[in-house]
Amino acid sequence: MRRGREIHLARRPVGLPTPDDFRIVEVDVPDPGPGEVLVRNTLMSVDPYMRGRMDDRPSYMPPFELDQPLDGGAIGRVEASGDPAFSPGQLVSHGVGWRDWSIVPARHVREIDPDAAPPGAYLGVLGAPGWTAYVGLLDIAALRDGDVVFVSGAAGAVGSLVCQIAKLRGHTVIASAGSPAKVAHLRDELGVDAAFDYHDGPVAELLAAAAPDGIDVYFDNVGGEHLEAAIGAMRLHGRVAICGSISTYNAVDPPPGPRNLDLVFARRLTLRGFMIRDHRDRFEDFRRDVTQWLREGRIRYRETVVDGLERAPEALIGLLQGENLGKMLVRIEEGA
Amino acid sequence: MRRGREIHLARRPVGLPTPDDFRIVEVDVPDPGPGEVLVRNTLMSVDPYMRGRMDDRPSYMPPFELDQPLDGGAIGRVEASGDPAFSPGQLVSHGVGWRDWSIVPARHVREIDPDAAPPGAYLGVLGAPGWTAYVGLLDIAALRDGDVVFVSGAAGAVGSLVCQIAKLRGHTVIASAGSPAKVAHLRDELGVDAAFDYHDGPVAELLAAAAPDGIDVYFDNVGGEHLEAAIGAMRLHGRVAICGSISTYNAVDPPPGPRNLDLVFARRLTLRGFMIRDHRDRFEDFRRDVTQWLREGRIRYRETVVDGLERAPEALIGLLQGENLGKMLVRIEEGA
Repeated sequence: MRRGREIHLARRPVGLPTPDDFRIVEVDVPDPGPGEVLVRNTLMSVDPYMRGRMDDRPSYMPPFELDQPLDGGAIGRVEASGDPAFSPGQLVSHGVGWRDWSIVPARHVREIDPDAAPPGAYLGVLGAPGWTAYVGLLDIAALRDGDVVFVSGAAGAVGSLVCQIAKLRGHTVIASAGSPAKVAHLRDELGVDAAFDYHDGPVAELLAAAAPDGIDVYFDNVGGEHLEAAIGAMRLHGRVAICGSISTYNAVDPPPGPRNLDLVFARRLTLRGFMIRDHRDRFEDFRRDVTQWLREGRIRYRETVVDGLERAPEALIGLLQGENLGKMLVRIEEGA
Repeated sequence: MRRGREIHLARRPVGLPTPDDFRIVEVDVPDPGPGEVLVRNTLMSVDPYMRGRMDDRPSYMPPFELDQPLDGGAIGRVEASGDPAFSPGQLVSHGVGWRDWSIVPARHVREIDPDAAPPGAYLGVLGAPGWTAYVGLLDIAALRDGDVVFVSGAAGAVGSLVCQIAKLRGHTVIASAGSPAKVAHLRDELGVDAAFDYHDGPVAELLAAAAPDGIDVYFDNVGGEHLEAAIGAMRLHGRVAICGSISTYNAVDPPPGPRNLDLVFARRLTLRGFMIRDHRDRFEDFRRDVTQWLREGRIRYRETVVDGLERAPEALIGLLQGENLGKMLVRIEEGA
C-alpha cells in the first residue's frame, strides 16, 4: 500500500498561526474507487482565506476540522483513475491539496495544458487568484474609462494581476504593498504609476500623496486602515471591490470599521464583496483573456516557492506576514 | 415695498442645534426680475440633510453661510412673475424655502396639480422624499422577488414610503422607528410584518427577533448601530441602500464604523450610497407610479405640521430628535 503525508490542523490558532497548530501525519493511500482519480501532487497553493477556515465559526466555507487534513488548490499527475475521463500521466488541477497524494472525485479534476503556461500558473495567474482579479476589477468594480485605480496587497497573486489588467487598459494605477522590494517590483516590473510601502506612514497620507486627485476604484485585499483611507480618497461614484482583508485575519477581536462611512452616502460610493464562486459564467472569458495576455507578454507573474510538503505551514504563516512576492506555492518533490 | 421674513443661520451648532443657532430676520422683498418668479410660500419642507449643511465642511452640498438664509423645498403661490411660463395664482414648488417670500429663477420652479394630491404631498410622498424611497428601494437596493426588506427610520417621510412600496410588491417588511406610536402606525396603518422601537434593546437583537431568517435588503436612513445590525442579519448577496444616517448627524466626533464589515466579503454584500440628483431619469416613473398608488388608496402618508415660519428651527430640532411622524412641514399662514 502507498504511504502518503497530510498536513492536519492540530489546534485552532489564536492570532497568527504557529507551527504547533499543524501536524504532519502519515496515512495509507488506497486505490481510487469508481469515479475517483488518484493524483500525485507536485505543487500546492497557499492562500490567505485558509486562515479564516482555521477558526471554528460559521462562514462562507466550513471550518477545517481538528485532526483532519487541510485542503486547497493543487497540481499533480494522475497516478491511477477510476474514471474514463482521466488516465495516468495527465497533468491536472484540483482542490484537495495539503497532502502529497489526493483522491479526488473526477468531476472536481481539471486537465491543464503545460504548453500554454507552466503548471504553477494554473494555481495563480490562470487559477483562482487570477480569476478573482479579473472578475473583481472588471465586473465588481465595474472599471470605466478614465478610472484611477488603487490596489492594496498589490504584490500578491491577486493584486499583481489587478494592477496589470488596469495598466493594459490604460488606467492610472496606485499600488500599496508591505516592503521596499515589493514596491520596487510594482514600479519597475509591473509598471504601476505610483506605489508605496504602507509601513512608511498613515495609509491615508501615503495614498493622498500618490493620488492627489483621488481614486475611482479601490481593489481591497487587506481591509482595515487601507479601506478607510481608500474611502477617504474616493471621488464621486467610486467603487470598492472587497476581495479580502488580510490585515484583519489574525485579529482576536473584531477590528473597528472605517470611521468615514458617511462618505459612502455623500459621494455615492458602492462597496461590494465578491467571490468567484458566484461568477463561474466569467471563467472562460478570464481564461481566454489572461492566456492571451500571457502569450503576448503583456502580463507577468511571480511565484514564491517553498520546497517540501512539511514546510507548508511555514509557507502559510509567511504568507500571512506578507513574505511572498506573487503567488505562494509549496513544491512537493516527486518520489519524496 | 413688501416686507418678508427669513430664517438665518446665526452660528454653527455643535451637536444638536439649539434655537440660538437660528435668527429670524426681516427683509425687503423686491419685485421679480426678468426670468424670476416671486412666490408667497405656504408650506416648507424640513429635512434631516439640512443638519449637515449647518457644519462648515466640504460635502455634497455647500454649507449654509452664517448670517444668510437657509433654504429647502417649499410650496407656494405665484405672486408676480418675470417669466411667461408662470402667472400669479399658480401653485408651485421650488427649493428656496425657509422664508415667507421667495424670488426663484423660473427654471427652478415647477407647477403642481392640487387636484392630484394635496400641496403637502409634493414635499413628501410625491417630492424628494418619495423619489428617494422609490429609487433607493427599486434601483439601488435592486429589489428582487422574495427579498425580506428591513427599513430604519421607517415612520419618516422616506421610510414610510419604502415600507409601503415593498409591501405592495408582496415583500416581507421589517421596520424600526423611535417610539411606540410610530411602531403602532407602522404595524396598524402601513401593514408592515414586524416593527420595533429601537430604544427597546440592542438593535441586533431586536432585528434578529423580528427577522429570524435574516434580511436581503436594508434601506438605511439612520446609520450607526442599525447599519451594523443590518449587516449582521444579511443573507447571501444582500444589498444595503444608504440614504442617510440621521443617528450620526449631530455627532461631534466621527462615529466608529460597523465592526462586521468582514461580512461584506463573506456574504458578498453590496453597500451603496445614493442621491436622487443622480437619478433624474427616474423622476417621471416615480411620479407616475406613486400618483397612481395614491389614487388607488394603496399608499398613505402622514405629515407633522408646525405652524409659523418662526417655528421652523424648532421643527428642525424636533425632526433631528425623531418627533415627526411622516413628513415634517412648516405651514406659513397666508397674510402673516
